[in-house]
Amino acid sequence: MKNKKTNIVTTDILIIGAGPAGMVAAMTAMQHNPNKQITVIRSYEKSQVPCGIPYVFGTTLGSVEKNAMACGGNPAADKIEKIIDTVTGVDIEKKMVTALNHSINFDKLIFATGSIPFVHKNFQDTINLDNVFTIRKEYHEVEKLKNYLENRQKIIVIGAGFIGVEMATELISKGKEVILVSGGHVLADSFDEDMALKAEEIVKNLGVKLALGQHANHITHKDEMATGVELCDGTTLDADVIILATGYEPNTRLAAEAGLKLARYKGIWVDEYMRTRNKDIFAVGDCCGRRDFITRDPSKVMLASTSASEARIAGGSLYKLEHLKGFDGTIAIFSTMIGDRVFASAGVTEQRATDENIDYVSGFFESMNRHPGTIPDASKQSVKLIAMRSSGQIIGGQVIGDKEAGEIINILGLAIESKLTVHSLISLQVATQPLLTSAPTTYPIVMAAQAVLANSQR
Amino acid sequence: MKNKKTNIVTTDILIIGAGPAGMVAAMTAMQHNPNKQITVIRSYEKSQVPCGIPYVFGTTLGSVEKNAMACGGNPAADKIEKIIDTVTGVDIEKKMVTALNHSINFDKLIFATGSIPFVHKNFQDTINLDNVFTIRKEYHEVEKLKNYLENRQKIIVIGAGFIGVEMATELISKGKEVILVSGGHVLADSFDEDMALKAEEIVKNLGVKLALGQHANHITHKDEMATGVELCDGTTLDADVIILATGYEPNTRLAAEAGLKLARYKGIWVDEYMRTRNKDIFAVGDCCGRRDFITRDPSKVMLASTSASEARIAGGSLYKLEHLKGFDGTIAIFSTMIGDRVFASAGVTEQRATDENIDYVSGFFESMNRHPGTIPDASKQSVKLIAMRSSGQIIGGQVIGDKEAGEIINILGLAIESKLTVHSLISLQVATQPLLTSAPTTYPIVMAAQAVLANSQR
Repeated sequence: MKNKKTNIVTTDILIIGAGPAGMVAAMTAMQHNPNKQITVIRSYEKSQVPCGIPYVFGTTLGSVEKNAMACGGNPAADKIEKIIDTVTGVDIEKKMVTALNHSINFDKLIFATGSIPFVHKNFQDTINLDNVFTIRKEYHEVEKLKNYLENRQKIIVIGAGFIGVEMATELISKGKEVILVSGGHVLADSFDEDMALKAEEIVKNLGVKLALGQHANHITHKDEMATGVELCDGTTLDADVIILATGYEPNTRLAAEAGLKLARYKGIWVDEYMRTRNKDIFAVGDCCGRRDFITRDPSKVMLASTSASEARIAGGSLYKLEHLKGFDGTIAIFSTMIGDRVFASAGVTEQRATDENIDYVSGFFESMNRHPGTIPDASKQSVKLIAMRSSGQIIGGQVIGDKEAGEIINILGLAIESKLTVHSLISLQVATQPLLTSAPTTYPIVMAAQAVLANSQR
Repeated sequence: MKNKKTNIVTTDILIIGAGPAGMVAAMTAMQHNPNKQITVIRSYEKSQVPCGIPYVFGTTLGSVEKNAMACGGNPAADKIEKIIDTVTGVDIEKKMVTALNHSINFDKLIFATGSIPFVHKNFQDTINLDNVFTIRKEYHEVEKLKNYLENRQKIIVIGAGFIGVEMATELISKGKEVILVSGGHVLADSFDEDMALKAEEIVKNLGVKLALGQHANHITHKDEMATGVELCDGTTLDADVIILATGYEPNTRLAAEAGLKLARYKGIWVDEYMRTRNKDIFAVGDCCGRRDFITRDPSKVMLASTSASEARIAGGSLYKLEHLKGFDGTIAIFSTMIGDRVFASAGVTEQRATDENIDYVSGFFESMNRHPGTIPDASKQSVKLIAMRSSGQIIGGQVIGDKEAGEIINILGLAIESKLTVHSLISLQVATQPLLTSAPTTYPIVMAAQAVLANSQR
């Protein structure tokens, strides 16, 4: 690092990281504090839309460029100072952040350092092999993996969460041979077996080979090249490339070195207003410690939308608190598309409810997403609701349907977050329209709520 | 009426009418009272999906048959006794309903007699002309209008509410020449001018001629055939057929004759549990008197989904009340598709809020419905929110977008019904996914809520 020149900067609000959480925190902070100087520091100029990454590898986007994150769009964003540099240390007492070429004094600091791939101990000794990859989120890393896959045919994806399933089906769309390996069902954290089996059916029909129900024991290799995966029953699978889609962990080395308290799973400990124990230091997004809205357990759920929600609360709470409801835990609200079907989930599954000793009742209803069912693009739509038996409060929902299912889950999310009961949902007033929704008489959320009531009277 | 034979029937629960309200009331009553005999009486064997009627006249469904209402689907429906007959009188004291060929004793009675076209006084003397039609909901009446239109080319649709606009655009799809006449903007009860203008643009581009801003003074005619319409400025428009899409009114002649109290606009007066003043007599759907959830005014809103909601409350409240929240007024939640764009609305418009002396603030946000915007089927999505200035409670929302906007409006509906505030919406946790929704950083409901907050600080 020759000729190093340190630029000394002073700002009111400093945000480390410019992913969705960092940018939303910056924008919200500006809205609430128009006269404060806001600065964002990030390592690289270009970045990727995190949830869009799987689509770079298939035919949907097909290019890294098309998945570039637009920082602009909002003219207000121009007023935010941006520094491209890598932070090396945070001095909380001196209120100063040190980067390779900068030294930045702040009044309020927000950590938005995101997450990095989690590597299970089974793979830690093989993770550096030339043809073993995690799915990293940096622009150049996505580019590197895409280039590497260009001429490779046989790919094993380990991990059947949302990213694993999306990667597998996108790679299939490019004519690759893909094996998806997981210890359980696909999307097992978000869907009960009855719904997951439907997802597996589609994944299989798309051409992905499923190796489910068995953990990957280790990656086999010859010199610096992985040759495949050995499952726990001893079976071996061959591959040209191995991709680990085994989750992420909070990127909190900086925060820990700065002396901030970490929560379980390594996230930065924050209160409901996203404040660390130091009232001038906040953390938002994947780098912060999360709890589950329903079970109150520490949570590993990482979602850009949750991050954005946290960032809005932090951005609006830097100098004064304005609203009693802070961030009260993640409702774990997900959606994805598998083939031409949407799978969406919020709250707890039945399995999770059982594990947590929740006395629950579930209800299921399937109808058509148009009415009458003769409308040309009509298809099936199903909703499963999970509610506390006695109070009737909605604690979980799963939806399968066409694209609008991606918004139906947000109705359920709002019901969960608002602690509504099945009684409220039964008399829910909804807009129904032949070309757009199920019939008013069979709107699936209402019917599933009714099924919950019927089942709880049994 | 020779050889008339009166069948004497005794039932526990009798429902007059088998539209969406009647059938949902019957099904819900059965779920809550599995041991009671439930009977539905209706005039005709076959019926139409009410909201699907406009699509019979264009290319979307293109046939009356395809819009037949499926009464089955639910095996439980088979346990409901069905009588095809026309009710002629209701004796509340004797708890007896008289029909042409039946005499039915009941314990509980539910009126679900629906609505009939409203005919403005300007047209009352011309409504019986051979080529002047209202849009009736009976199967054979829809068939009759469809047959009549087969060989007619020039059509005037009077009234630019949802049915008028849907009729006009469907008729255009069949190559007809259509003029849409209205005293104001299209969909003026549900959208403010800024949104309505966008709808008009599309309607025009589809080929419908718009004659807006002027009431139709009267229908011109020669002998028994209408020749056109004279507008209030004296302009005359020629037509082969004139269709009145000028709303509906409660069908309550029977109820009035039975001595039940009617509310303003002729609906049967009911309380929040859909009970008339007689605790054994209920009314649901378009035949009952409605209030507006927000303004508390009597409301003319008629929606099958609202009817279904009322019917579920009535069906569950016949013998005992189970949940404090009854039907607390219509939130006027609508959606439709114009061309390839969805227009959806819930609650009050800005105009209505002004008329009602509501101190409101609105917020608007437009983004893309996919992220990144390079996803192949991405299109614009915009949300307008209207909230009480001081409390921040959401009282209205308008959405324009692709098909999923039909469910986004239901998120807003739930927010309105639950009396949520913009503060809750700002930290709303939503599922966002590249192929299905806008970006987590720009989810339009959240951004519109933020705009409301920003605008209220001005």
